[in-house]
Amino acid sequence: MEAVAAVSPGWAPGEPEQAEGAGEAGAVGEAGAAEAAAERFARACWSGIAEPGDAVAGHLVSTLGAADALRCLVDRLPAASIIGLLQDAGGDAPNDAAVEAGLERWRPRLAASSALTALRQAHRCGARLVVPGDREWPAGFAGLGPHQPLALWVRGRPNAVLGLRSAIAIVGARAASGYGEHVAMELSAGLADRGFGVASGAAYGIDGMAHRSALASSGQTFAFLAGGVDRFYPTGHDALLARIAEVGVVLSELPCGSAPTKWRFLQRNRLIAAASLATVVVEAGVRSGSLNTAAHAAALGRPLGAVPGPVTSPSSAGCHRLLREFDAVCVTTAEEVVQLVAEPAPGQFQPELRGLPALEAPQRAGPRGDVAGPVGGRRRPAEHVRVLDAVSRRALRSAEEVAQRAGLSVGSAQAALGALGLEGVVEEKDGGWRAVPAG
Amino acid sequence: MEAVAAVSPGWAPGEPEQAEGAGEAGAVGEAGAAEAAAERFARACWSGIAEPGDAVAGHLVSTLGAADALRCLVDRLPAASIIGLLQDAGGDAPNDAAVEAGLERWRPRLAASSALTALRQAHRCGARLVVPGDREWPAGFAGLGPHQPLALWVRGRPNAVLGLRSAIAIVGARAASGYGEHVAMELSAGLADRGFGVASGAAYGIDGMAHRSALASSGQTFAFLAGGVDRFYPTGHDALLARIAEVGVVLSELPCGSAPTKWRFLQRNRLIAAASLATVVVEAGVRSGSLNTAAHAAALGRPLGAVPGPVTSPSSAGCHRLLREFDAVCVTTAEEVVQLVAEPAPGQFQPELRGLPALEAPQRAGPRGDVAGPVGGRRRPAEHVRVLDAVSRRALRSAEEVAQRAGLSVGSAQAALGALGLEGVVEEKDGGWRAVPAG
Repeated sequence: MEAVAAVSPGWAPGEPEQAEGAGEAGAVGEAGAAEAAAERFARACWSGIAEPGDAVAGHLVSTLGAADALRCLVDRLPAASIIGLLQDAGGDAPNDAAVEAGLERWRPRLAASSALTALRQAHRCGARLVVPGDREWPAGFAGLGPHQPLALWVRGRPNAVLGLRSAIAIVGARAASGYGEHVAMELSAGLADRGFGVASGAAYGIDGMAHRSALASSGQTFAFLAGGVDRFYPTGHDALLARIAEVGVVLSELPCGSAPTKWRFLQRNRLIAAASLATVVVEAGVRSGSLNTAAHAAALGRPLGAVPGPVTSPSSAGCHRLLREFDAVCVTTAEEVVQLVAEPAPGQFQPELRGLPALEAPQRAGPRGDVAGPVGGRRRPAEHVRVLDAVSRRALRSAEEVAQRAGLSVGSAQAALGALGLEGVVEEKDGGWRAVPAG
Repeated sequence: MEAVAAVSPGWAPGEPEQAEGAGEAGAVGEAGAAEAAAERFARACWSGIAEPGDAVAGHLVSTLGAADALRCLVDRLPAASIIGLLQDAGGDAPNDAAVEAGLERWRPRLAASSALTALRQAHRCGARLVVPGDREWPAGFAGLGPHQPLALWVRGRPNAVLGLRSAIAIVGARAASGYGEHVAMELSAGLADRGFGVASGAAYGIDGMAHRSALASSGQTFAFLAGGVDRFYPTGHDALLARIAEVGVVLSELPCGSAPTKWRFLQRNRLIAAASLATVVVEAGVRSGSLNTAAHAAALGRPLGAVPGPVTSPSSAGCHRLLREFDAVCVTTAEEVVQLVAEPAPGQFQPELRGLPALEAPQRAGPRGDVAGPVGGRRRPAEHVRVLDAVSRRALRSAEEVAQRAGLSVGSAQAALGALGLEGVVEEKDGGWRAVPAG
């Protein structure tokens, strides 16, 4: 923690919520400021230690504070002591096994902790750290409960993140048709014209068109990345993302230097859904990742819209499924998108969570025992997805290294490697593991 | 009523419901048979006297029986006496004014009654008369209450009407796109393959394609006409309707010789919705008449499906409106259409009537004080629609003649003519009325 002063201002408080009242700001005092700085630094560390959506980490950090939670980890406190601290703090404590498993997941990351590197990289690329309590912290994240991000890394002008309060997510397939791109463009421009921001995932296809069209209409746009904000992904959107960082906002819950993985894409989707007033899927195949964003929006009770298309077009099949199975609202114009977030007229359909089919249940129950969502053709347990993210086709990696990369305990990683080995998608060789190319 | 014997078998009982048990059939006896025949003939008369959907006529006929109700009219019984008879029969009586207005609507038609002509024409074209109590009477009509048809004129093989019990309505715009026609064809063929009949309105565009595709797949198909079954409409579908009369069924609640009018098209739509298990709108502009059929289906609590299309296509705008405002189910395949009528799976959307916007309220409140539905650009009171149906651009017609053609009392017709005259859509000349061409 001695390094705190060295990395300012990359991690330094932008504008804490408390500072809004001048009197209060004075009352915080020097000790308070030091504590806030420590808390801030610990949040930065945690954002690299726990994988996105880790509910046990979220619980620990929100109950004990990030700094004390980190101290538990650094001091190698046993699970029982940590549970004692949680109970003393008056919180519900997760069970012993959950905390034990969490410690096993986090320790390998702590050893290799690159928080300082991440902070330096953030400083270099002009990224700021935003944490709960900051005025810029998106209010919508509260709906995520213990799954809310531990920190947010942001590139954009000061306070630009505040625009998320009137942003609507426009998402969709990478493999978009001309029709889908045209509609994404129309909706995004229409929202910008009406003073709404446009949030999306910066992917090719619908996402990119939504961002571009908002920029072209001088609207606010917000790009949520699955990796660090210092490395733009996809690389073909380098220029687009650089432009968004300039006049809009690029955000990630992962520290600089983090690679995007399939798991992180799925978890990134929950941020898009939670930060926005509503989510609209413009075009999506039946397995499109944007359906995962839609499922998050529905589970959060946020308005969900879907744009219909020809029934003969596979690119619209996912949208039609949302209309059929998720009670998504059929939207065809920007005006109708805005109606999603307006006061419902009497007798008008009120979007709410009802009868969600089990298949599309969103991934909010923490990183263990989850399923990875409808992406990628087949449904795998969350840990398998994360282990597959962590193995390489070329390099052999030890189970320990896989565990650290995946943010899993060594035991969990070994179990997953074994199961995936039986499936034939990974193989062991000379004591290391590697991915087996499909087909 | 002496003419009854002369017109057999055009009007003769096909197969009364009671005849199904052989013992019962014997018990009916000769007097019973004569009474049934009289009832049957009276129904045929009523089908030409009251305009479709006349709830007062429906109430009178269902409470007193068609023959006694007709006798009231022939004997010029005052409204008070008729109400007395209704009360004696144990039914709820409509108020004095409603019965009085009904008598004024029906009397001009009684004077010009062409029941015998209609029966002769029916005989000539091979049409049968089906009345409530007959085995062939569509069970779905019960949902219409007093608005159910007084009789049904049918061309098709004996008992073919029974196929309606497993028929689904496929309807849509006349101005269909290639996309819409393609989808109508696919859905209709898919339903035929799965053993479902296809009901529609024989119009150009979607309707015609639905019938044709069912025929091509050797499926059962049911064409509901707005005029008599002896005069096929539209004339361009002469050959198609002749083919349907041969292997499917052509039906109308109006006696042979009746012309189709705008009012009758709207009322015909209620029969399509009521007779079918579910209604699917394939393609519809925002003012398409098929939205009226959809509104009837929704009001009857029948499953309602809508096929989405490109949001850039005006031909799909009505379908998208059904999805948004009517909670219509998005259907994209025949399989999904069948699911509309299958047992709903747990958590699946259950079509039901909720929060229908006032704009699209269907026309089931009887012929007085109604609105004509979303067809034709502007919304007019029902009586205005019917008076416009009854005036000609060329011939001058007296208010009495207009009243008889419209199935209205002379007073109502005069009031409507006056109002329409103020609007400038009709004009009076030499004591007669005629329509003023638009523009």
